[in-house]
Amino acid sequence: MFVHSHSQRNDTLLGNGVIGILAETVNMWERRAPLTPSHCARLVLGGGKRESGVNRIIVQPSTKRIHHDAQYEDAGCEISEDLSECGLIVGIKQPKLEMILPDRAYAFFSHTHKAQKENMPLLDKIMEERVSLFDYELIVDDDGKRMLAFGKFAGRAGLIDFLHGLGQRYLSLGYSTPFLSLGQSHMYPSLAAAKAAVIAIGEEIATYGLPSGICPIVFAFTGSGNVSQGAQEIFKLLPHTFVDAEKLPELSAGKSLPPHHQSTRRAFQLYGCVVTSKDMVAPKDPSRCFDKADYYAHPEHYRPVFHERIAPYASAIVNCMYWERRFPRLLSIDQLQQLMKNGCPLVGISDITCDIGGSIEFVNKSTSIERPFFRYDTSTNLYHDDMEGDGVICLAVDILPTEFSREASQHFGDILSRFVTSLASAKGLLELPSHLRRACIAYTGKLTPLYEYIPRMRKTMIELPPTPANSLPDKKYTTLVSLCGHLFDKFLINEALDIIETAGGSFHLVKCDVGQSIDDMSYSELE
Amino acid sequence: MFVHSHSQRNDTLLGNGVIGILAETVNMWERRAPLTPSHCARLVLGGGKRESGVNRIIVQPSTKRIHHDAQYEDAGCEISEDLSECGLIVGIKQPKLEMILPDRAYAFFSHTHKAQKENMPLLDKIMEERVSLFDYELIVDDDGKRMLAFGKFAGRAGLIDFLHGLGQRYLSLGYSTPFLSLGQSHMYPSLAAAKAAVIAIGEEIATYGLPSGICPIVFAFTGSGNVSQGAQEIFKLLPHTFVDAEKLPELSAGKSLPPHHQSTRRAFQLYGCVVTSKDMVAPKDPSRCFDKADYYAHPEHYRPVFHERIAPYASAIVNCMYWERRFPRLLSIDQLQQLMKNGCPLVGISDITCDIGGSIEFVNKSTSIERPFFRYDTSTNLYHDDMEGDGVICLAVDILPTEFSREASQHFGDILSRFVTSLASAKGLLELPSHLRRACIAYTGKLTPLYEYIPRMRKTMIELPPTPANSLPDKKYTTLVSLCGHLFDKFLINEALDIIETAGGSFHLVKCDVGQSIDDMSYSELE
Repeated sequence: MFVHSHSQRNDTLLGNGVIGILAETVNMWERRAPLTPSHCARLVLGGGKRESGVNRIIVQPSTKRIHHDAQYEDAGCEISEDLSECGLIVGIKQPKLEMILPDRAYAFFSHTHKAQKENMPLLDKIMEERVSLFDYELIVDDDGKRMLAFGKFAGRAGLIDFLHGLGQRYLSLGYSTPFLSLGQSHMYPSLAAAKAAVIAIGEEIATYGLPSGICPIVFAFTGSGNVSQGAQEIFKLLPHTFVDAEKLPELSAGKSLPPHHQSTRRAFQLYGCVVTSKDMVAPKDPSRCFDKADYYAHPEHYRPVFHERIAPYASAIVNCMYWERRFPRLLSIDQLQQLMKNGCPLVGISDITCDIGGSIEFVNKSTSIERPFFRYDTSTNLYHDDMEGDGVICLAVDILPTEFSREASQHFGDILSRFVTSLASAKGLLELPSHLRRACIAYTGKLTPLYEYIPRMRKTMIELPPTPANSLPDKKYTTLVSLCGHLFDKFLINEALDIIETAGGSFHLVKCDVGQSIDDMSYSELE
Repeated sequence: MFVHSHSQRNDTLLGNGVIGILAETVNMWERRAPLTPSHCARLVLGGGKRESGVNRIIVQPSTKRIHHDAQYEDAGCEISEDLSECGLIVGIKQPKLEMILPDRAYAFFSHTHKAQKENMPLLDKIMEERVSLFDYELIVDDDGKRMLAFGKFAGRAGLIDFLHGLGQRYLSLGYSTPFLSLGQSHMYPSLAAAKAAVIAIGEEIATYGLPSGICPIVFAFTGSGNVSQGAQEIFKLLPHTFVDAEKLPELSAGKSLPPHHQSTRRAFQLYGCVVTSKDMVAPKDPSRCFDKADYYAHPEHYRPVFHERIAPYASAIVNCMYWERRFPRLLSIDQLQQLMKNGCPLVGISDITCDIGGSIEFVNKSTSIERPFFRYDTSTNLYHDDMEGDGVICLAVDILPTEFSREASQHFGDILSRFVTSLASAKGLLELPSHLRRACIAYTGKLTPLYEYIPRMRKTMIELPPTPANSLPDKKYTTLVSLCGHLFDKFLINEALDIIETAGGSFHLVKCDVGQSIDDMSYSELE
């Protein structure tokens, strides 16, 4: 389809102002683009005026992208499989390895900076082809906050998809609800249309109510970042009241009406509860009060209480929080089994963080957009891919933002547009602003100093014996040094490894969770 | 939950003007009601004025019915599990056997008049409890046309559900289409909202077009009844042109553009083709012309041509036609396999008739609303319940109209309201108008003369050995008498059995298709 132009290997490619946009190939549902046609139009137009700007944009044709090729053409882009003239090639996700061209700069979510095993062939290929790699995930402002992210869209899509599933689940439990009249996020032509549909079912709830047998319907939201904000934004389109965690028992008690009333007394709103760490854990020492800073410093002094204070009253848990293994889980399998045995009203969990084996222990796999739910039967400990039967349903889709491809691409491109001219025109790393320099994992095929830890880390990961990661070798001279926190985002890891090696120790990686939102690691040091 | 009132066994119950409305229990998705609250309000109000009318309506509570209990209460109905005071009890589908009260009249779709094996316990129970049974399916006007039916809603829901699935299927083939932005029928709060969503994707098709790689998209509709009309009603909301079958090759030929154009040339409409019997079969004798009357009388003189004239050009087949086994199939497995081998554009089939093993041979099972599609891989002859991979997708949901519960109930109740006063107030069968008398399978526990054939038929069905039904016993004295046509609706079967028995023969049922839309039967007679 296109010609590898090895003959063009020269320094003029980098910074030549020609941008390529990849056709996405990783996931069937990936319809997003890093730049929309309107972004491209502005970039090409702007580039024409300046000497060092964006001169041309070449777009790989795609029949799947939310914006059609013709729209890019109309915006002044060229459509071609061949991106060999491009100094900078951008995508959402990585291209196929064999499509990676030498000596170019690439920008995409590479998922390599935690030495993620599945993406090491990608990193090898990048170094082999003398590629410069910029990773969106590592573009952070001076406060360490990610600048290019899709969290809010994940929250929105995750709540709508969950409401959709809730309708089917309640039906299987014998209840018609307005939730049945809602589709999944991608079944609407726009975010606005999806919101209008949520508002419409909200009107039905406000007018005709919900069956009393499933009321009060309480949504517990964890986390306070973009994901949670996106989820709450959708929830707030429905008639609702937010209540404090302390009020949940009282709210639930109102439910115990005589059976005669239960069939006719309907509820006309939902309840929301935003759960913070003080409702998730309590000090083990009952004489002490909860202190957030103390909890973050010494989580081992705290015991989990979410299963006592929140879960017994929640119809749904919407999990949007960052979690690390040093904290107690939000909900363990044991706790959930006990709760269900005691007849708690929990119907489902929307694990928007999609934190496999993380804060919600039973979430052991991600799901797909076409089959977004699994059902976990607490009594048998079995997983099913239907909605009918005992247990709780769980949504664990890891590619939610693509359900709103159009708006997510617009949002992403709005921000990327601000960086992309520098990336496309810089002839050297030092020409770039610091937030982009820090996001450069490899430059012309060599790891930049910030990311030199990757091969060291990778080596220790390879050396790990295939035993359960949490069984430490029983040796006297082994000291477990546990390094926790945002190791990667804050570039601490190189320093840590330096210290260990300087002290004459070698290290083995005991545990390294490289999930989307887990950044904690533990090293065992051999003295 | 309620008390069987055997003590009330007396003649005053029938015709007492008290109607009961059942809670539906057969299918999780059954949210329809035979009478809506507004119908009830008018009936109760009207009944109060006349001596012989509807005096009271008692509604079994349901948390699943599209209309809430409170709405029936507001309409002047009583809500009670106990229907023992009701002389007439109406539902959409049958109640649970143990809930059937003695000496009442019942009206629902009983699916017993073809001696359907699975419903014979129901008929036994009805006779045992001296029940009078009216079957909606048998209420026909003097032209033999069914008066109470949901066909148009099946057509509408079946087309929308199919378009929805088509979006996912095209995506799995690598194409984003506006169909992806459409939900299933039940995911809209009303038929109007669903139609608005179809119109919205139609606008997108008209504005931005469809990828040329899947164009022209041709929908072939079979049948001309209510089902086909409902399906076409939805199709016509999209930008479209209907073409004659003869024009299909020409239309398809326009597709062969040079590859360069294929990625940018988009199509801005769909094509429809209403297929009639003259495009399905041709006379075996090439010197003869197609003659519809002759074909119906002598189908054996005709050979199938749908696979030559239509299927090679259709992206989708929407099957809405009545079919009997004496006719050639619309599409055999062999034909389909050959077509797919030759690269035909067929993506999917919406078998709205849900004619298992019928006109489209590979349709060997029905599907559920929550999983409406299966995929049939023609190369391996295997069935899958996903959308990704080779083959064609097929929708075969047998309870489509309930996806538009509100409108379907309104439509049904509008007609039932015209009959229900007579049914509720008649003290004897002779008081009823003829179309209701003819729909009475049993009166006070005895089969009415029209339906006395059922036990005879049933007996022969039980005696059938469990061998493949189409392998005839190879005996000289066996004559196969094939009785075809609307045997049941036209009450011919009693006469046929009389003739056979009068002639001194006994009979065995060789084949009896009791599907929704197959009414042909074949008897083997022992001389």
